[in-house]
Amino acid sequence: MDRRSFITKAGFAGVGVAASSMLAAPAIAQENQTWRMVTTWPKNFPGLGVGAQRLADRITAASGGRLTIQLYSAGELVPPLQSLDAVIDGSAEMSHGAAYYWQNKSQALNFFTGVPFGMTSRELTGWVRYLGGQEIWDEIYDQYGVQGFLSGDTGTQAGGWFRNELTGVADVQGLRFRTPGLGGQVWERLGASVTNMAAGEIFQALQSGTLDAAEFVGPYNDLALGFYQIAKNYYFPSFIEPGLATELVVDKAKYTALPADLQAIIRDCCQAEYDAVAADFAANDPRALQTLVNDHGVQIRQFPEEIMEAGAQAATEILTGLRDSGDELTKKTAESFISALNIVRQKTQGTDSLFIQAREKYFQI
Amino acid sequence: MDRRSFITKAGFAGVGVAASSMLAAPAIAQENQTWRMVTTWPKNFPGLGVGAQRLADRITAASGGRLTIQLYSAGELVPPLQSLDAVIDGSAEMSHGAAYYWQNKSQALNFFTGVPFGMTSRELTGWVRYLGGQEIWDEIYDQYGVQGFLSGDTGTQAGGWFRNELTGVADVQGLRFRTPGLGGQVWERLGASVTNMAAGEIFQALQSGTLDAAEFVGPYNDLALGFYQIAKNYYFPSFIEPGLATELVVDKAKYTALPADLQAIIRDCCQAEYDAVAADFAANDPRALQTLVNDHGVQIRQFPEEIMEAGAQAATEILTGLRDSGDELTKKTAESFISALNIVRQKTQGTDSLFIQAREKYFQI
Repeated sequence: MDRRSFITKAGFAGVGVAASSMLAAPAIAQENQTWRMVTTWPKNFPGLGVGAQRLADRITAASGGRLTIQLYSAGELVPPLQSLDAVIDGSAEMSHGAAYYWQNKSQALNFFTGVPFGMTSRELTGWVRYLGGQEIWDEIYDQYGVQGFLSGDTGTQAGGWFRNELTGVADVQGLRFRTPGLGGQVWERLGASVTNMAAGEIFQALQSGTLDAAEFVGPYNDLALGFYQIAKNYYFPSFIEPGLATELVVDKAKYTALPADLQAIIRDCCQAEYDAVAADFAANDPRALQTLVNDHGVQIRQFPEEIMEAGAQAATEILTGLRDSGDELTKKTAESFISALNIVRQKTQGTDSLFIQAREKYFQI
Repeated sequence: MDRRSFITKAGFAGVGVAASSMLAAPAIAQENQTWRMVTTWPKNFPGLGVGAQRLADRITAASGGRLTIQLYSAGELVPPLQSLDAVIDGSAEMSHGAAYYWQNKSQALNFFTGVPFGMTSRELTGWVRYLGGQEIWDEIYDQYGVQGFLSGDTGTQAGGWFRNELTGVADVQGLRFRTPGLGGQVWERLGASVTNMAAGEIFQALQSGTLDAAEFVGPYNDLALGFYQIAKNYYFPSFIEPGLATELVVDKAKYTALPADLQAIIRDCCQAEYDAVAADFAANDPRALQTLVNDHGVQIRQFPEEIMEAGAQAATEILTGLRDSGDELTKKTAESFISALNIVRQKTQGTDSLFIQAREKYFQI
């Protein structure tokens, strides 16, 4: 579409303020609006980019076109890692990405995406929706005039692609490993030489020998990037990303100026998408993994216990450090997250996990 | 509210047919409608009844009151187990319940709630939304002129309350156990004397000695019913209900006659509620369990391996029987479910479960 005509239309965003006074009679004709959703994902990126587009379409459809969401993939309107800033400075109304991309603004934001040895996707919703997580998240984002909603989750990820087999922590020493964020800090403490690089650069770095190993998302995304051509050892599970939640961030002033029904539609569609993205990965990660094993000779391996134990120790130090942070909101978030984790894990470990293990052991059909 | 004035308002449901021609201009004033949602749950029943009410409120809010949903708890308009029939015969527009309550109409409906040794809540959405489940469900319900949507999930349930400790299958012989449906059939094959009775009757039957054991949902619901006063042994996990999905069923003719935006709102709100109910149980089951253990002296126990293995064998026989059913749709549903289970379980077992076990073993914070 014509970018200029779009921006002109987007100027209607301001009418939301007037519209909010029409709450008592929402059926009365309102000016249609178009909002810009920038994203951190490449166009049609499996699971996540597709989910962002589907969320945009859902809001447009449920609002009957009163609020049309125009999606811009990574780099189309702003560079991917400026998506949140684009909402803050008003050049977009919405950003679809992951909260931990903005950890330079606050370390607390890591918790709303996922942290090493932290929560699974279902546990995260327990915390965010029922154990105080959303309220703290709102407090953090209020500082920037934005409102965050969960909008998807990859589920537990894969641990990464390794050129050579790992027998213990000794094999990690000096290993040149691509893995970002707090997870990267965990692997650094284990002795790896950690670097970060964008998705599109990983394959080349593996091929040229700049990297010995790389971790990205899971089979659904990793298959598309071709890592299996270089490194055949695919390790499970990721203990640094037990879940990765995506977010939709909305300009809070424009959001609260919307009529109540459009606010509800944005909220409900984000929550529906949280389920949809997680279901997509649940169905398509294993199918992609079958392809990797059957068609590309990938070896599925589990991390040695020694590595997982050392990883847990490193994660404890990192999360404890955040809980003892001098930053009040980071401290508060870490305390709330850890306290909630110690509640929700009881069901996951004492019920879900026991069932899954029994089914694995006894039920073949 | 006045039931009579409500029923008069509900007469507006028919205008949806006219409204659907207004798709191109949804902002034009439409006649507001009120729809009746009957439910199988008692009023304010934790997790499920509360979720039904929240779903009704969500649709009302997101539609700006164009579609107001009036909820009737179990027995208020029709008896709970006539909820689906009420939609079929037109005395309600929506029913909130569980598909397996209607297994007398089709055994296939069991699969859309949950079956012994079947899918967890996340796996079920993988099947229903991405591996063909919804399409088959539509085929089944089309016979009755209704449309079904997933609307919630309890997650993996508790295995039940037992007066005496279980050491093996020998202890199950003749055990008078309250557990309904396919799960009841599993326990029957293990040697139990299985009966079903309504929630409100279980406590009395345990107290009088008519029952030796009872299985209902999980800590969040069971705490409220007081079973801990009689039977102190609380067994985990339920291998007969690894997840229990609820449904919203809508009169299909009235649904398809709605303008597209209201159809989208119903669909999106159901999917949002699937996440909300599951999150509610994730947060509140473990809190209720803490209360049961700390305040009421309940003993948490795991089923002996011998019982789980025999349960898996019985479940295999029952599900294989459904797959070999003479009823074409039951056969098709069982085949689709089993094939999808064998896909989605790979991620749950090979990734999620490995992470949860590693966290349990190594990560204390």
